[in-house]
Amino acid sequence: MYEHTKEEYEKMKAWGMLTSLDLHGCDMKKVESKETIEKWIIELCKLIDMKRYGEPHVVYFGDNPKVSGYSAFQLIETSGITGHFGLGPTGKDGYAYVDIFSCKHFDPFKAAEFTKKWFGAKEYRINTIYRKSSFQESGETEKGRAISVGIKKLLEDVETPYQHLQIFDTVYFGKMLVLDGAIMITDFDEFVYHEMISHVPLLTHPNPKRVLIIGGGDGGVAREVAKHPGVEEIHVCEIDETVVDLCKKHFPKVSTALGDRRVKIFYEDGSKFIKEHKGHYDVILVDSSDPVGPAEPLFKENFYKDLKDAAAADGIIVTQSESMYYHKELLKGMAEFNKRLFPVYKYYHANVPTYPSGVIGFSFCSKKHEPMKFDEKRAAQLKGLQYYTPEIHRAAFVLPKFFRELT
Amino acid sequence: MYEHTKEEYEKMKAWGMLTSLDLHGCDMKKVESKETIEKWIIELCKLIDMKRYGEPHVVYFGDNPKVSGYSAFQLIETSGITGHFGLGPTGKDGYAYVDIFSCKHFDPFKAAEFTKKWFGAKEYRINTIYRKSSFQESGETEKGRAISVGIKKLLEDVETPYQHLQIFDTVYFGKMLVLDGAIMITDFDEFVYHEMISHVPLLTHPNPKRVLIIGGGDGGVAREVAKHPGVEEIHVCEIDETVVDLCKKHFPKVSTALGDRRVKIFYEDGSKFIKEHKGHYDVILVDSSDPVGPAEPLFKENFYKDLKDAAAADGIIVTQSESMYYHKELLKGMAEFNKRLFPVYKYYHANVPTYPSGVIGFSFCSKKHEPMKFDEKRAAQLKGLQYYTPEIHRAAFVLPKFFRELT
Repeated sequence: MYEHTKEEYEKMKAWGMLTSLDLHGCDMKKVESKETIEKWIIELCKLIDMKRYGEPHVVYFGDNPKVSGYSAFQLIETSGITGHFGLGPTGKDGYAYVDIFSCKHFDPFKAAEFTKKWFGAKEYRINTIYRKSSFQESGETEKGRAISVGIKKLLEDVETPYQHLQIFDTVYFGKMLVLDGAIMITDFDEFVYHEMISHVPLLTHPNPKRVLIIGGGDGGVAREVAKHPGVEEIHVCEIDETVVDLCKKHFPKVSTALGDRRVKIFYEDGSKFIKEHKGHYDVILVDSSDPVGPAEPLFKENFYKDLKDAAAADGIIVTQSESMYYHKELLKGMAEFNKRLFPVYKYYHANVPTYPSGVIGFSFCSKKHEPMKFDEKRAAQLKGLQYYTPEIHRAAFVLPKFFRELT
Repeated sequence: MYEHTKEEYEKMKAWGMLTSLDLHGCDMKKVESKETIEKWIIELCKLIDMKRYGEPHVVYFGDNPKVSGYSAFQLIETSGITGHFGLGPTGKDGYAYVDIFSCKHFDPFKAAEFTKKWFGAKEYRINTIYRKSSFQESGETEKGRAISVGIKKLLEDVETPYQHLQIFDTVYFGKMLVLDGAIMITDFDEFVYHEMISHVPLLTHPNPKRVLIIGGGDGGVAREVAKHPGVEEIHVCEIDETVVDLCKKHFPKVSTALGDRRVKIFYEDGSKFIKEHKGHYDVILVDSSDPVGPAEPLFKENFYKDLKDAAAADGIIVTQSESMYYHKELLKGMAEFNKRLFPVYKYYHANVPTYPSGVIGFSFCSKKHEPMKFDEKRAAQLKGLQYYTPEIHRAAFVLPKFFRELT
């Protein structure tokens, strides 16, 4: 999947790269010659520009006829090269199993082709791994569950003033934005989340004019909100300018609405921002990251009190609210205080394959309007939808028995 | 997560185990002594019972003061031991970075404690990996997407006459059954799939008496079917007796109904079995694995024709039908022929975190009955449900816009 260029390798910030080579059909005389093996190691190191430390170390293993043959090792400044050579169980198939492990970049195919030629091999298999070649969400991995995403290329890897931002080009999901080790959006399924966090409240509110998005620097929520012609003001309160800049560069289809004349971006802390805008917004959408680190307060009662104050008298608030499978206790607590705070509180959900457990939930908090009464006529006028339908709107509030009983 | 016992290691059938040790605060004289390092390697090999090949290879790296110090390598019969020793950038902190890689089992902690003592280290960090320590679905991994499941222990690893069967104890999902590299069930979320494949058709059929389950050797579908008192006959046609035996042993809560007096297990090929039971079943449930390898024909039109013939005049057939996110083309094709074959064809779905994309679908094929007309009174009498409710029944048939348009 990788192109194995040096630029790419350096961007990956991998610990090292390991190429495993399995060569068969080698010239039997060559794999049985200590001298040939020693010379191969010396020449290989020159070819791939590795500094040898000490001489090649080549030893014959003779005790067990099944595995007899030479083993070789060469220390290099940046790690080592090992090889195992023999004739196999039949005594007729010269083989070589070679591992090149280095924290300095090299070209695996150059090494492979050279080795194939040197030992007169008929064929080889090559496998190169970077220690970072498959992305897993850091927090989820520790919990014993994670989605693994095949990576083609690391496009950005930045420590912003607020978080660790990475953008990958992936094998299956297109481009992927990762903040502090957690997947935020992928080209493949961002539409689900962005449509569902936006259209459910905007179609429930009879006449939303002023909308606030907290977080949302990728522009996906703003894009959906901008589809509503009645909306006059779209405020995006994103703490991290780098998110906006890099999403504009890499996710043009997601960030498209950030240039809309109704959109205004505030680079501020959302929890402070809402305290300064009391009673102002018809709809507030909290597009936050997960409740670990900086976003943790956004899952607490005090924040919801401030959200309530920032909303107009018939305002609606919808917040990203994790997985009903993986965050039961958190969601139980949130349901408790939200039922106290708001006349209308409901939980709804949607399928997003790249989020933990494949499902993401939303807290629907409303001062007046019920989510089952919404404007189907306006819904029918929305353009470019891929997930949302009025039927999906209703079905999203239907919860599995275990979760309905819990909350 | 691992206990690192030899039994466990052998059951894992891992390629090898690698222990990385980072030791700091070492006695500076010891890490600067070639003799001490050589003796350490020899003694360590004795302690963990590794056969050395050749003498320890210890070389001084002196060019760059930042990384000056000794590197060491020892070939062992089953792989090798490497170490890097020095005083660090300050010149005052003796360090040792040691990797022990072997395809033969050893006790990592024994090796670590010995090494710590030998070099007088104040502390160490240890990390042991098995090449199989995190399970990923083989087919999904190749596609660049997979769930990674932390493994505590491999409990079973059997090549049955039909497939490769593994049962793992996992970090988060309880026990997990894997067939040919694909996750079949986990204790954590099996209830979703089993309830949804069963109760939707059984409550839609006005009076189901004869039920056939194709596959289903784990017993989960039979358990749900057995909750319907009106059902008189539950035939399970499972090709692989080993699945039944090992699920009875490891998944007692799932396989519980396999002893029900109404249940009869046939160890036969389901596609042949249905040809011999024409017009017999009120409900047929196809609890198959994925459409690769042996289960591939179960996703083809001919099989659905045979299912139709095996069903009674008002029979209902429900089949496991993959993910609407990951198998669009397959499902588009299946929808086409099923709409031709059956008076009623609908697709429905449910969230199962451990299945690809976190969502699993079902094809609902019916000769007469519509799934929106079902028996809510009987539903209310079902005991021990965790996912299914009448509202979930209806919501499960609501499909996202992109998929509704596709099928």
